[in-house]
Amino acid sequence: MIRHNGASKKHKKYLTEKGEIMNNSSRKIEELIEKIAVFTENNGTGFTRFSYTDMDIEARRLIIEEMTTLNLDVYMDYLGNIFGRREGKNKAAPAILIGSHLDTVKDGGKYDGVAGVIAGIEVVRLLTEKNIETENPIEVIAFAEEEGGRFHSAFVGSNWIAGNIKDEDLSKYLDDNGVSIEEASKSLDVLNPIVKRCRRREINAKAMFELHCEQGTVLENEKISLGIVSSITGSSSFRVTLKGMANHAGTIPMNLRRDAFYGASLISVELNRYVKTFETHSVGTIGNICVKPNAYNIIPGEVSFSMDIRSLDENNMFSIINHMKTYIEKIALENKLDFEIKENHLEYPVKMSKELIDALVDNARNKSYSYKVMGSGAGHDTIVMNEICDTVMVFVPSKDGRSHCKEEYSSPRHIAMGCDIIMDTIIKI
Amino acid sequence: MIRHNGASKKHKKYLTEKGEIMNNSSRKIEELIEKIAVFTENNGTGFTRFSYTDMDIEARRLIIEEMTTLNLDVYMDYLGNIFGRREGKNKAAPAILIGSHLDTVKDGGKYDGVAGVIAGIEVVRLLTEKNIETENPIEVIAFAEEEGGRFHSAFVGSNWIAGNIKDEDLSKYLDDNGVSIEEASKSLDVLNPIVKRCRRREINAKAMFELHCEQGTVLENEKISLGIVSSITGSSSFRVTLKGMANHAGTIPMNLRRDAFYGASLISVELNRYVKTFETHSVGTIGNICVKPNAYNIIPGEVSFSMDIRSLDENNMFSIINHMKTYIEKIALENKLDFEIKENHLEYPVKMSKELIDALVDNARNKSYSYKVMGSGAGHDTIVMNEICDTVMVFVPSKDGRSHCKEEYSSPRHIAMGCDIIMDTIIKI
Repeated sequence: MIRHNGASKKHKKYLTEKGEIMNNSSRKIEELIEKIAVFTENNGTGFTRFSYTDMDIEARRLIIEEMTTLNLDVYMDYLGNIFGRREGKNKAAPAILIGSHLDTVKDGGKYDGVAGVIAGIEVVRLLTEKNIETENPIEVIAFAEEEGGRFHSAFVGSNWIAGNIKDEDLSKYLDDNGVSIEEASKSLDVLNPIVKRCRRREINAKAMFELHCEQGTVLENEKISLGIVSSITGSSSFRVTLKGMANHAGTIPMNLRRDAFYGASLISVELNRYVKTFETHSVGTIGNICVKPNAYNIIPGEVSFSMDIRSLDENNMFSIINHMKTYIEKIALENKLDFEIKENHLEYPVKMSKELIDALVDNARNKSYSYKVMGSGAGHDTIVMNEICDTVMVFVPSKDGRSHCKEEYSSPRHIAMGCDIIMDTIIKI
Repeated sequence: MIRHNGASKKHKKYLTEKGEIMNNSSRKIEELIEKIAVFTENNGTGFTRFSYTDMDIEARRLIIEEMTTLNLDVYMDYLGNIFGRREGKNKAAPAILIGSHLDTVKDGGKYDGVAGVIAGIEVVRLLTEKNIETENPIEVIAFAEEEGGRFHSAFVGSNWIAGNIKDEDLSKYLDDNGVSIEEASKSLDVLNPIVKRCRRREINAKAMFELHCEQGTVLENEKISLGIVSSITGSSSFRVTLKGMANHAGTIPMNLRRDAFYGASLISVELNRYVKTFETHSVGTIGNICVKPNAYNIIPGEVSFSMDIRSLDENNMFSIINHMKTYIEKIALENKLDFEIKENHLEYPVKMSKELIDALVDNARNKSYSYKVMGSGAGHDTIVMNEICDTVMVFVPSKDGRSHCKEEYSSPRHIAMGCDIIMDTIIKI
């Protein structure tokens, strides 16, 4: 971990000199974030924009129009990944990608994903404003279905781009109403008049940048403006189903029960206990729980729940996964429950490009922005794009570390700083 | 506990002699159960008939018509309790009540409640068939909202009859859509043409009989036809809400989390552990769980769950309640959770009438039916009616002890035997 210190005087000097440009950039970013935030199923509990819903379509329409206004060639593939291309001096050269995603978790925030898409648009706007032509083409990307909020599987859009998801797999991704991603994505056809549609876009890329909220408290606690990400946590997600026997809550003695929720509780307690034994950043979460029949006076006959396990260390991650699989089997046996463990996704920890990290560090130093080279506890599309090209991420501080909730906030000024060093790096490479 | 043994020869002899009458009674009972079973929100997962829904209204219509066919005077109060009165020789004498309820839990069965209402109708039909006039009037009762499936509170209909629920309280009972019981019960007005409506029926009762499925495995395991209930378990139900902080499942270290579901899991494990330490029948169940935002990649920010605690022993019940209240407070403190515990209902264990138990035992013995005097692990309207008059219950075996599920089954022959000894007892008293 590198940390840049003693820059406060230079920093202040920089802000005085470059204040006007920075303010203009911040203002543009803030405006666009607020414009997109309108497109949400908002019942006051947060911002919800699930893929292929009306709100998602309106957010896409706005992004496509912003890209078109900046004279980008805009493409959208079958699944809804959007690409806004700014041609380079060398049209055949591999593209530089900048972007993130537009979908949110249920009751999420305004910044997660959106900030990175807007950063891509802002970098292109700045280059155009400054009349800078780049050698390589630039493509601003808005990935589809990153969060897995609707189809319960993360990084679907980027995995589709990378070819990890095949055409024949698309019918297997189902939302809570049993609608497949294949069926749901047809709603995007309403955007055909304003965008070039393609089935799957061929990617020829040199590098990918993703700006994102940190979603933790490290930068804020240390009063640092930018995080330059050196590696991203591995992440895995499972669906565990326990089947016991639904029965009357009053008449069945405790020792004759097959209570699926009791089994789930034991597993939850053990997941928390075991994960805490690791020193490197490792986390385990049961976030989605479905209980049947879910009546106060009936012993739960069936419980299914998500089990999300992540670690910056690959060995730790598999140690936790294997321990929990064994434990679930043990609990099921002891409590006369049938069980099933389904793997929803598995991403290994990945390392970012050293060249890109160094370039970003140099540019942050040149601009006297405080920064920190750090790991990411959250997974991102960049993990998948790392299979295709060099990748790097820039983090901006999250207020109170809050994320995936309505209180989520990152300062437009920090996002503008991130855009600034990404732009400098693009010009350099 | 008394058990009647060595009756198998006499039993067989009885069945041969009285077979025809019993068969006729069984057939009538079976027909009526199947007729009512049609009125269910049945998606294949069970029988669901919540109060004041279209299905409930159709079931009531059928019961009212059956009562009318038997020349009963049929009344229905404001909340939907139905009374079918057969006049006695002495019209001013206190009535003898027989009945149970028509509503079901979510995904419940065909017998729980319905069997007891039909038993009341069958007893009246037998008396009429045999031209027997009783000294006291008889009222067959179908109680409203016994299970609490819709309004999350048990015994609402009988508590209304007993005056434990006041008019001004009715707006406080809300279903999941926020509709109050006061509002919902207005749908019953469609039945006004076929029934005499009253606000609250004045009850002048001598005794109440309730036939019910055992909902456990005691009778079946011991191959006994009838249970004569000596006492009913106390029961209590709470709603526990834990509030932590929803946040990203990847970035927040385990020691900084305020995970509401982890808190709920610890409470569930402790409830199971502690309840198992008691020797008299005591049970604890978490059956309904609501998690927010309930997304696989977000730490649960809020969990609310039901906590149902029952015991045949009053001291045990309060020991469990108090222990759990203290434990919930401890877990909330340790895990930085806000908490709330709301008491939904509380019923003390109650003893049935010794005179009625003895009379039923005598009649079972006279008819050579195998029987057992036993406790009830489930709560019933009889607990509430016990405040108004002498009460007793007759249990019939539940197949595999299953209850509150679609597999619930009790043999019409056993129900007919129950009707037979109840009729004999009514004639005697």
